[in-house]
Amino acid sequence: MKTARVAFAGAIHTAHPHPTGLQLVDGRVLSEDQVVWLPPFEVGSVIALGLNYADHVKELSKELTIGSADEPLVFLKSAGSLLGHRGVTRRPAGVAFMHHECELSVVIGKTARRVSREQAMDHVWGYTVCNDYAIRDHLENWYRPNLRVKNRDGGTVLGPWFVDASDVPDPHALALRTLVNGRVTQQGNTAQMIHDIPALIAYLSDVMTLRAGDVILTGTPDGVVNVDEGDEVVTEIDGIGRLVNHIVGDAVFGR
Amino acid sequence: MKTARVAFAGAIHTAHPHPTGLQLVDGRVLSEDQVVWLPPFEVGSVIALGLNYADHVKELSKELTIGSADEPLVFLKSAGSLLGHRGVTRRPAGVAFMHHECELSVVIGKTARRVSREQAMDHVWGYTVCNDYAIRDHLENWYRPNLRVKNRDGGTVLGPWFVDASDVPDPHALALRTLVNGRVTQQGNTAQMIHDIPALIAYLSDVMTLRAGDVILTGTPDGVVNVDEGDEVVTEIDGIGRLVNHIVGDAVFGR
Repeated sequence: MKTARVAFAGAIHTAHPHPTGLQLVDGRVLSEDQVVWLPPFEVGSVIALGLNYADHVKELSKELTIGSADEPLVFLKSAGSLLGHRGVTRRPAGVAFMHHECELSVVIGKTARRVSREQAMDHVWGYTVCNDYAIRDHLENWYRPNLRVKNRDGGTVLGPWFVDASDVPDPHALALRTLVNGRVTQQGNTAQMIHDIPALIAYLSDVMTLRAGDVILTGTPDGVVNVDEGDEVVTEIDGIGRLVNHIVGDAVFGR
Repeated sequence: MKTARVAFAGAIHTAHPHPTGLQLVDGRVLSEDQVVWLPPFEVGSVIALGLNYADHVKELSKELTIGSADEPLVFLKSAGSLLGHRGVTRRPAGVAFMHHECELSVVIGKTARRVSREQAMDHVWGYTVCNDYAIRDHLENWYRPNLRVKNRDGGTVLGPWFVDASDVPDPHALALRTLVNGRVTQQGNTAQMIHDIPALIAYLSDVMTLRAGDVILTGTPDGVVNVDEGDEVVTEIDGIGRLVNHIVGDAVFGR
């Protein structure tokens, strides 16, 4: 089943896909632009992967001495960075490289503490698409991006749909891509992950307790390009969803 | 005013200090060991500082080429790492260096977005004490600690009291110290911060929106030492509070 969380007529609703757009659980059928799309589940902790696709590692640097092979490069993002489908993300004035990053998001459904690789998938509730923007100008260090790179307001776009794990037979065989103004910039397949989903859950649950609603952003393949004010950025994963975002400039905001 | 959040007799209560312990807002007077102490406010995003005291920078390394002088080294911690007063923190088996870190915690009370240094203190709601444990074994990189170092369950101890900002005339003139089994291991003063509180709020609010309940852990002075199973660790800041924590081993947990 696919589920969204949307704001409409004074309340937040659960919705499902409908041939003409979406249907609220109370029965109302709406078009996609009648609602405000929120991240499609109540988001707990946001755990993001750096450098989890070999081609992306190569694209960024050939001098990495840690990460990829050894252990996952993981970092946290905060609630204020979250945004839903059809939202606008700010491009700060004066930066040269704001990169999109299409990523499969894995949502935890059952508390996980020190679970094995074999048990790990039992703790997955479902999936959604993430566009995990990065302001590369500020990346002074590859090991772990700082908040100026990865924790801007609206820089973690999630949605549109939450897809139940039972509807995704193999999450490691999903084609993903990004289109900027209709042109494909990024293409890959979740089969290319360096650390796959069971490995990530086993690793993380050894360090900390994973709880329902926590989400793991599994990293991005190569092809990240700069986006500019006015761009429409679509991150898409086959069978999961097509997430639309627009880039706006500082002028849209009062401060 | 000093406020705590405690669990007692089936509910979570707000409490205030009382000569014999604490008093719930419903009037009941209790001793300190009758309740379970929770972090003393509803915690939003947790933002922590690395290397924000010059003597601690010196203690850790003389080869730092970034950070301290340039800009604050900030990173995030997740909700699962939080713990209250009198809690137990696990020392994972097989590590050599689990360090305590006494830190002044600054709690945001009013949304802050791109506020100036001059406006910054208007956004502070109050203060508490933090013991921000680090598993130094895993610190492969000084720039920004990874989750194995800084995001263990129970590794962010907060409390016991939330102290209103109006009761703290100068947060940059507070003596702080740590005692392990009654012996002073760490001593400093918040006057020694490299980036002071207004600088931190101005810097962070330029990157992201700070919201009520978000907390900034302002870093620790030198004197961090290893703690072992069975140790009582007291982190204390004059005028703010005396936070007690105990170290336990893996055997206490089932997994």
